[in-house]
Amino acid sequence: VSKANIICVGDELLHGAIADRDGAMVASFLRRSGIVATRIVMVGDDYRAIAAELAAASARCDLLVVTGGLGPTSDDQTRDALGFFVGQAVEFDEELWMEIQRTLGRKLRGSNRSQACRPALFSPLLNARGTAPGLIGEVGGCRVVALPGPPGELQGMLDNHGETIVAGLGEYVRIDSVFSVFGVPESRLEDAMRDISRESDSDRVEWHTRAEPYRIVLRLAGGTEESRAERSAELARRIGPQRLAADETTIAAVVIDELRVRGLRLAAAESCTGGMIGSLLTSVPGASDVFWGSCVTYANDAKDRVLDVRSVAEHGAVSEETVREMVGGVLRLAGVSAGIAVSGIAGPDGGTDEKPVGTVWIACALEGKVAAERFQLPGDRDRIRRSATVEALVMLRVMIGGIV
Amino acid sequence: VSKANIICVGDELLHGAIADRDGAMVASFLRRSGIVATRIVMVGDDYRAIAAELAAASARCDLLVVTGGLGPTSDDQTRDALGFFVGQAVEFDEELWMEIQRTLGRKLRGSNRSQACRPALFSPLLNARGTAPGLIGEVGGCRVVALPGPPGELQGMLDNHGETIVAGLGEYVRIDSVFSVFGVPESRLEDAMRDISRESDSDRVEWHTRAEPYRIVLRLAGGTEESRAERSAELARRIGPQRLAADETTIAAVVIDELRVRGLRLAAAESCTGGMIGSLLTSVPGASDVFWGSCVTYANDAKDRVLDVRSVAEHGAVSEETVREMVGGVLRLAGVSAGIAVSGIAGPDGGTDEKPVGTVWIACALEGKVAAERFQLPGDRDRIRRSATVEALVMLRVMIGGIV
Repeated sequence: VSKANIICVGDELLHGAIADRDGAMVASFLRRSGIVATRIVMVGDDYRAIAAELAAASARCDLLVVTGGLGPTSDDQTRDALGFFVGQAVEFDEELWMEIQRTLGRKLRGSNRSQACRPALFSPLLNARGTAPGLIGEVGGCRVVALPGPPGELQGMLDNHGETIVAGLGEYVRIDSVFSVFGVPESRLEDAMRDISRESDSDRVEWHTRAEPYRIVLRLAGGTEESRAERSAELARRIGPQRLAADETTIAAVVIDELRVRGLRLAAAESCTGGMIGSLLTSVPGASDVFWGSCVTYANDAKDRVLDVRSVAEHGAVSEETVREMVGGVLRLAGVSAGIAVSGIAGPDGGTDEKPVGTVWIACALEGKVAAERFQLPGDRDRIRRSATVEALVMLRVMIGGIV
Repeated sequence: VSKANIICVGDELLHGAIADRDGAMVASFLRRSGIVATRIVMVGDDYRAIAAELAAASARCDLLVVTGGLGPTSDDQTRDALGFFVGQAVEFDEELWMEIQRTLGRKLRGSNRSQACRPALFSPLLNARGTAPGLIGEVGGCRVVALPGPPGELQGMLDNHGETIVAGLGEYVRIDSVFSVFGVPESRLEDAMRDISRESDSDRVEWHTRAEPYRIVLRLAGGTEESRAERSAELARRIGPQRLAADETTIAAVVIDELRVRGLRLAAAESCTGGMIGSLLTSVPGASDVFWGSCVTYANDAKDRVLDVRSVAEHGAVSEETVREMVGGVLRLAGVSAGIAVSGIAGPDGGTDEKPVGTVWIACALEGKVAAERFQLPGDRDRIRRSATVEALVMLRVMIGGIV
């Protein structure tokens, strides 16, 4: 397996004001290509310091990727560092200067001329998104590649020149399938994917995950279309098909689409989620033709006044009776045929032996049918509320789709 | 000026799935202490690789901070790397084992015993937030400090042991004043702070900002209590005192506190924010005695049915008339004396020449008085909705407090 090092250049990375994103982006690209990144080094805008890192790193790896320091100002010293490192002058390349302007489709000023300079040992890699071309060269058995630092330009360079960058060292794989996963802990998803990868004897499929507040984005790369479809089908069997969707989407967008297709409208009644269900549903542009609204009846008198809930005194605000009354109340008020209601104990206070923090009741209604379920959700207040939001929408998706 | 290197340990940092936060956190701490970080290196969970980085880095700096790799599993190899680096065995320290359990206030299992192991050259730094103590030692003119990787624990270690870590190398400045800033763009806040710093001839006060979805956290460090108070008072004059609060808090928590003190209850009526106001208010534990609830009347028929809003046909859903009717409607329904109502065009569609995307009307009511205001908010759908949420609560704060 080929080994790689990554050097990220920029004084700002050493100030602590911003965290580096380029290193992770390159590392993820290399991993997909079957190349192991063994070190990432961040260094300031100083050509001698950069050259010292180039020398140290190139001696211990097959591929060295440098990001940043290719801008037009005197702060940008990566080109000088490459020249110093290989003992060559950094010279203006008239042809490259023309080529940069052709690629960009506009004339550049003199201040950008430095970006058309390079040591002779390095060939340019054209940048479709900016003025800084990349540089690539072989130095004593190590391929050295310098790429622009702005994340959008860097991603474009990896997409356009990925094959050239890893040629002969790894196998360049395009990211082919993206999925969203709802309400599954990241560790459980990773265990499932590891398991599925181990059992599979089909061709190599790489995967990685990115956790966000209401979903995990799962990327499958490499292999054939069939082998990737097999993996996602097996994942659906393990976590439940209602917890998986194609592309980067949210459970709210999925539910809204499915309701729209069926010509149904949805109303919500929320207690512990406090408006998070409404907020997630309305994060989808154009939700208003499907989503009627949400009654956030946080205080108990609100439940009674707005939704005619009578069960709180006898059964408590967090009970099957209460959420069934909540969903019934909001359906009557809205005059729509799909509804969800949530009431739970998000903590940190309010838990009892019988109903500890994390106890959440959810009721869903669809065209006359009503279902209610009790959940015991882990984590702190914020995590319990987010999980309750996702579980309510997942439960509704099951009712709508007849999935499971 | 003393020079520092930072080594961040963890295979996950080289996979590209997550970006490093520890390096930036330590760099920011060092910067405040007047120490220059010249390199940050990320390396995997392998004691030989870590030891090689320790050797290379310690030769070129006065302070070497290592983060991560101090957990209890076999993946955690920073302790072994330190031992290998200085040529000492890593031995169990009975006293430290007792001390860790005393600090945590509970018994630990055997699997955590490795965290009480250390090479004799390194002394422990107790960790108030976790099971992994830090380690500190002097190796050939370089101070080497290993700290736990989870960001919350790392921040705690820098807060509690910062003075020890930089003693003799830099000047430790406690972060003395923390503020939350609401509804001010980060660039405007930074311009204001730069401006204030330039004009001030008082002693050195360092500042830095951290942007989050509903606030920016501003930290002032160094100087005297008076000079810091002067800076924050000047900032309040520039951005408006209603947009500033002491400590890490939210505008929702500030408003809830101010209502609680006055014995008032609050109800909301939301359209474009879709539940975000309710969600932010209920993120405050114990909100239920102040916050009645929110009517998320997203569809126009919901505004009519729930809140008796009649103005939509004549004036449009985004109009002064509509938000005044919304706030009046929710006050009647809830029987409380404080209310806010928001209706706007969050986009991407729905804008017109007269009411472009970003047009938001907000009404606030308090004990019989009602005010309404039109806003033109920048950004995409998500940013407009978040800004509308913050502006509604800022406007209510002004009404409650008689600030301005």
